Amino acid sequence: MGLMGETLTQILIPLAAIVGIEFALLQWFLVSKVRVSNVSGLNNGYMNALIEDDEQEEGVDNDEAVEKCAEIQNAISLGATSFLFTEYKYLGIFTVVFGAIIFLFLGSVKGFSTKSEPCSYNPGSLCKPALANAIFSTIAFLLGALTSVLSGFLGMKIATFANARTTLEARKGVGKAFITAFRSGAVMGFLLAANGLLVLFVSIHLFKLYYGDDWEGLYESITGYGLGGSSMALFGRVGGGIYTKAADVGADLVGKVERNIPEDDPRNPAVIADNVGDNVGDIAGMGSDLFGSYAESTCAALFVASISSFGISHDYTAMSYPLIISSMGIVVCLITTLFATDLVEIKNVDEIEPSLKRQLLISTILMTAGIGMVSFFALPSEFTLFNFGTDKIVKNWHLFFCVSIGLWAGLVIGYTTEYYTSNAYSPVQDVADSCRTGAATNVIFGLALGYKSVIIPIFAIAVAIYVSFSMAAMYGIAVSALGMLSTIATGLAIDAYGPISDNAGGIAEMAGMSHKIRERTDALDAAGNTTAAIGKGFAIGSAALVSLALFGAFVSRAGIKTVDVLTPKVFIGLLVGAMLPYWFSAMTMKSVGSAALKMVEEVRRQFNTIPGLMEGRAKPDYATCVKISTDASLKEMIPPGALVILTPLIAGTLFGVETLAGVLAGSLVSGVQVAISASNTGGAWDNAKKYIEAGASEHALSLGPKGSDCHKAAVIGDTIGDPLKDTSGPSLNILIKLMAVESLVFAPFFATHGGLLFKLL
Amino acid sequence: MGLMGETLTQILIPLAAIVGIEFALLQWFLVSKVRVSNVSGLNNGYMNALIEDDEQEEGVDNDEAVEKCAEIQNAISLGATSFLFTEYKYLGIFTVVFGAIIFLFLGSVKGFSTKSEPCSYNPGSLCKPALANAIFSTIAFLLGALTSVLSGFLGMKIATFANARTTLEARKGVGKAFITAFRSGAVMGFLLAANGLLVLFVSIHLFKLYYGDDWEGLYESITGYGLGGSSMALFGRVGGGIYTKAADVGADLVGKVERNIPEDDPRNPAVIADNVGDNVGDIAGMGSDLFGSYAESTCAALFVASISSFGISHDYTAMSYPLIISSMGIVVCLITTLFATDLVEIKNVDEIEPSLKRQLLISTILMTAGIGMVSFFALPSEFTLFNFGTDKIVKNWHLFFCVSIGLWAGLVIGYTTEYYTSNAYSPVQDVADSCRTGAATNVIFGLALGYKSVIIPIFAIAVAIYVSFSMAAMYGIAVSALGMLSTIATGLAIDAYGPISDNAGGIAEMAGMSHKIRERTDALDAAGNTTAAIGKGFAIGSAALVSLALFGAFVSRAGIKTVDVLTPKVFIGLLVGAMLPYWFSAMTMKSVGSAALKMVEEVRRQFNTIPGLMEGRAKPDYATCVKISTDASLKEMIPPGALVILTPLIAGTLFGVETLAGVLAGSLVSGVQVAISASNTGGAWDNAKKYIEAGASEHALSLGPKGSDCHKAAVIGDTIGDPLKDTSGPSLNILIKLMAVESLVFAPFFATHGGLLFKLL
Repeated sequence: MGLMGETLTQILIPLAAIVGIEFALLQWFLVSKVRVSNVSGLNNGYMNALIEDDEQEEGVDNDEAVEKCAEIQNAISLGATSFLFTEYKYLGIFTVVFGAIIFLFLGSVKGFSTKSEPCSYNPGSLCKPALANAIFSTIAFLLGALTSVLSGFLGMKIATFANARTTLEARKGVGKAFITAFRSGAVMGFLLAANGLLVLFVSIHLFKLYYGDDWEGLYESITGYGLGGSSMALFGRVGGGIYTKAADVGADLVGKVERNIPEDDPRNPAVIADNVGDNVGDIAGMGSDLFGSYAESTCAALFVASISSFGISHDYTAMSYPLIISSMGIVVCLITTLFATDLVEIKNVDEIEPSLKRQLLISTILMTAGIGMVSFFALPSEFTLFNFGTDKIVKNWHLFFCVSIGLWAGLVIGYTTEYYTSNAYSPVQDVADSCRTGAATNVIFGLALGYKSVIIPIFAIAVAIYVSFSMAAMYGIAVSALGMLSTIATGLAIDAYGPISDNAGGIAEMAGMSHKIRERTDALDAAGNTTAAIGKGFAIGSAALVSLALFGAFVSRAGIKTVDVLTPKVFIGLLVGAMLPYWFSAMTMKSVGSAALKMVEEVRRQFNTIPGLMEGRAKPDYATCVKISTDASLKEMIPPGALVILTPLIAGTLFGVETLAGVLAGSLVSGVQVAISASNTGGAWDNAKKYIEAGASEHALSLGPKGSDCHKAAVIGDTIGDPLKDTSGPSLNILIKLMAVESLVFAPFFATHGGLLFKLL
Repeated sequence: MGLMGETLTQILIPLAAIVGIEFALLQWFLVSKVRVSNVSGLNNGYMNALIEDDEQEEGVDNDEAVEKCAEIQNAISLGATSFLFTEYKYLGIFTVVFGAIIFLFLGSVKGFSTKSEPCSYNPGSLCKPALANAIFSTIAFLLGALTSVLSGFLGMKIATFANARTTLEARKGVGKAFITAFRSGAVMGFLLAANGLLVLFVSIHLFKLYYGDDWEGLYESITGYGLGGSSMALFGRVGGGIYTKAADVGADLVGKVERNIPEDDPRNPAVIADNVGDNVGDIAGMGSDLFGSYAESTCAALFVASISSFGISHDYTAMSYPLIISSMGIVVCLITTLFATDLVEIKNVDEIEPSLKRQLLISTILMTAGIGMVSFFALPSEFTLFNFGTDKIVKNWHLFFCVSIGLWAGLVIGYTTEYYTSNAYSPVQDVADSCRTGAATNVIFGLALGYKSVIIPIFAIAVAIYVSFSMAAMYGIAVSALGMLSTIATGLAIDAYGPISDNAGGIAEMAGMSHKIRERTDALDAAGNTTAAIGKGFAIGSAALVSLALFGAFVSRAGIKTVDVLTPKVFIGLLVGAMLPYWFSAMTMKSVGSAALKMVEEVRRQFNTIPGLMEGRAKPDYATCVKISTDASLKEMIPPGALVILTPLIAGTLFGVETLAGVLAGSLVSGVQVAISASNTGGAWDNAKKYIEAGASEHALSLGPKGSDCHKAAVIGDTIGDPLKDTSGPSLNILIKLMAVESLVFAPFFATHGGLLFKLL
């Protein structure tokens, strides 16, 4: 037994979650003090006097701007809300249908019998019937889906609340704007992390009322929670990704390339759709995604733990180790956030990126200490794990290493991503330089950069896997993933900061604010591109570990002892699995391309038929563009979604668990590469363009200014990168996770009824 | 015992090889009848009267053109020969060093002992000492390297002999030009196939003088032949690929994009380097590559057979089954060729592609019958295979299915590739259509097309693997690969046809021949792009099967019973292995990009400083451009080469055979996808551009003409595709094969001394 008692654990976990939620609300309150309406007599923000209203600048930064900002913010928020509600209708239907499938498949394992069964890993005692598993898995699935949707929706609400406020604060200086954007990101980060933990904690305790001492059954059914979270995330990422990039690509192709008007110009009919897209794709989609990873790694860890010695001997605190780690993560992130918002002040645009990077480092160092404490207090000094048929003795300091190595691997991935996507370093500068000879070399260099950026993250993940696998088998992998995600609140904060800054820039442009303001928001945005890439790096890295943990749990639950590449069943699974990320990317890329073509036609039509639009005398028809993005994304998210959802069902039912295990391993090792390279290539192109636009060095000036041939080549690269970095790339980590968690949930069915085709032959 | 006696086998195999060589020489003789010098009184080709000298056409198609063609051909041939000789110097050094490494590593397995050892698979009898294995493996390696270099060199000689002849025959009509190009391709195809077979047959019989009845030792050491072939192919593909694409990209970026002069215009200083590149990259590199696949699959099959029942019971004919299949292939391809050259005449440009496609179908159907005969006559009706520790009973009709399914999977891959890269079908037309909205959408659609084109080939390979693996274990895979390569003579003929036609077009343009001629050579070339893509599809598909067979042989030889993904050693190997194709592609893409930048600078410099160059009054300095390509390719081929060569050595020595097995499986399943998508994307972009240029349909006309915005966007796509389809993509199949065959050769060393790092920990 560890040093921490059961009661203390039961108090501390929900306490940490509540503290996290309170902290998020506090940040929200602070952001809300920036007012976007001109109620007379009220101060706008904390230090209104700071607003520099420079008469010499062209553009309006005064109260008139505030009104305009409010108007635009309102339009974005309405668009995003209405899209998400439409999306949720579709997701609602899916959830009901898929919930029924889960129930029917799992119920059929023992012919819907209500008799208790001997437990699989502890055959001496009786466990709850398979039917209970079917029911509770379905409930957990619904809960996970609901929490995921809620996470995405809340994130979107916060982001659309914060964007105009960031713009307005930019009038006071870059530091104020940064804090507003960052605080808003923190609201999202803490709400999601704390909410996820709380719902899971409460669910476990409610399930326990029925399951009692049958921990194996309890944690088996709780894996449905991860499945629910990830399946919503899939559609969120894909649908949102198609939405945002159709609008973005369409807007850029006509606006920037053909009409030569700036990005986010209010005359561009697709500009509102573009800004809505940032919120539904990058914010809501990403929120659901990381929530899904968090839920899955926790479920995987809990499931593996439930069949270990402390699962069987009912050591509550040790069993709850994954939840305690997450609780500690919330506390650590809270302290870390203060470094960005209160302890250090940003005075210069150069300080933004280092400040965000510091967040990663501080949270990692503090969390390492936190993990040490938790491992020492919560775990018995020695315990036994089940490792594919053999027993493995593990010590508590082993787990400390497993969690820590995941955490530090995340930092390595984050820093590598930053190196390859920030325009402060030579890789992006080389890509920018290659624009001298046109778009073709830009694309060649960008693709090469993306491929190269895979190397270090893969080695980092490999080391994390080797160490944690050797020390604590699949449980080690699961807690290693959890380690990488333990600082999720901070990770999400700096990730959400990106699209918020992007929107803030868009609003500044649309409201006709001065060049100076736009420069500041651009600087925030450039850092945001990098942090978004870092966030994606984390999401992919953690997805790799999570998927492996889920894979291990699936293999255990399906009763396979080895997954031998030398058997044909496994090998063809491996080969076809490695192909799936390509199939999936082909669909999503093509969807973005086709939707963008439609958008281009509509934007061209408006420019050609609405008199006075180019001169700014007439208003474009934003709504039609919003509708094009909405319709395209809802229609186009179905085929890739079906591919991911159906593959495990088909592979498991027709070919059996060995082939399915091969498919999971293949899609994992191949998907990670495609995802990392796609998102870094896209990030690099975006920042190469921003590098030329900003013209901050002699080299950059020699490539610019905006509108030069080099810049045009850079814009082409940026446009190509859009679907890579915001649609295909980030959806792939859901592909690998979701297939794994789905296989885990359906494992009893596949083990009993699977492999029909081979049985027939 | 089979029905065919030992003596008959010993006569038939070399006989088939000699017939193949004779047939190649006959085709060469027919091509040589087209004269490129104006010796008075001699007829130029068979039917000189056919030359249409139309005075109304601008451009010179008369005798003056013949002289110009001769001159250009000479320049290309000289450039190619001089590059290959320089390359061979480097390769010579590599071969000596690597040969020494093989000898030292393998010799050290038993401490350079000269004592006989008990055989591994037949411990009752004595086998030759490990030192003999080291010596003969090294000799086989040197022989393989030599044959590979010879294959590439001969191919290049034939291609540079045929290019101008094809141009000149185009004056008589498209049919005559087609036959010249195709016959020349056939020369290369038959020479390579027959030569490879003959050298291998002779080597085996020479080795037998020493080995006598120790077949296990004999065929173990003969695998060095495959290693030699593939390592030369690696440098040939990478070096040649960088050479040709640096020149091509550089020439296009300045010529087509900046100066608006046509492709292959003689004013472009990089034009000779570009045409030389086709011969050293696409021809010599590809020749070495396919020869390598052929050698490796034969060696893998022979090695696996040597430890089967007919290896141990010394059934010579059954043992030689792989060689008899190849002999039958030569005969089948010979008949197939007659359909293209003598039985059907091409009268219209539309008939080119169907005629080439028909070649694939005819050879496949005939070969299926051939395989049936060979399997019935050469094999005993039942025999036993060794399958990772267990015995497996196999019947002769099982092997018929294994070989046939490989053959037909090749056809499926070929036809799929054609569908995705030919501009006769909607995928390429959609890509062309996406150029309406610029280069960005063109690239997005092209990438999506490449990803999508992976699906069917992967399923075809998976089915072939499953069937042949289930029927005859790893021997099944090896002969399945051999089945896919059994029609290699035809495959190489239609593959080599592509670059020859490309060169012919270039020569027509440079010699200032009429628009009509250029139209004909363009049509040949467009079909050539598709056949080149088909050839790459075959190369990749067969590489996948070959690598798997080699992987199986490696696992057998290293004494591993399972390669279990659930062990950390294997899994991290799998993950890192899946990353290697990305690392490799990053290097090669970047190399092409950097070399192209240098080329662009030089071409720009010449246009700016040589007075009268643009007006055609002064000659450009071709030699400097040739030098840039040469230097860049020789320097840049080293890092990717080192990555491929060193990975198995490092993984095996430091991490041991399990991790290495993981690396091989990972790079195989991931590399296949990257390779197929890269080469199809590139092929599609090239043909989308050609589709717009040709303007053969109303849709195509609406996108054109040359120089329109759509066409410019298409040119950008084409340029990006160049390194993908001709450098990275086709080199990747060598990456996976070479690592596998190298692991196989070094297996005894790794099994004895490998895994140092894990032993230390």
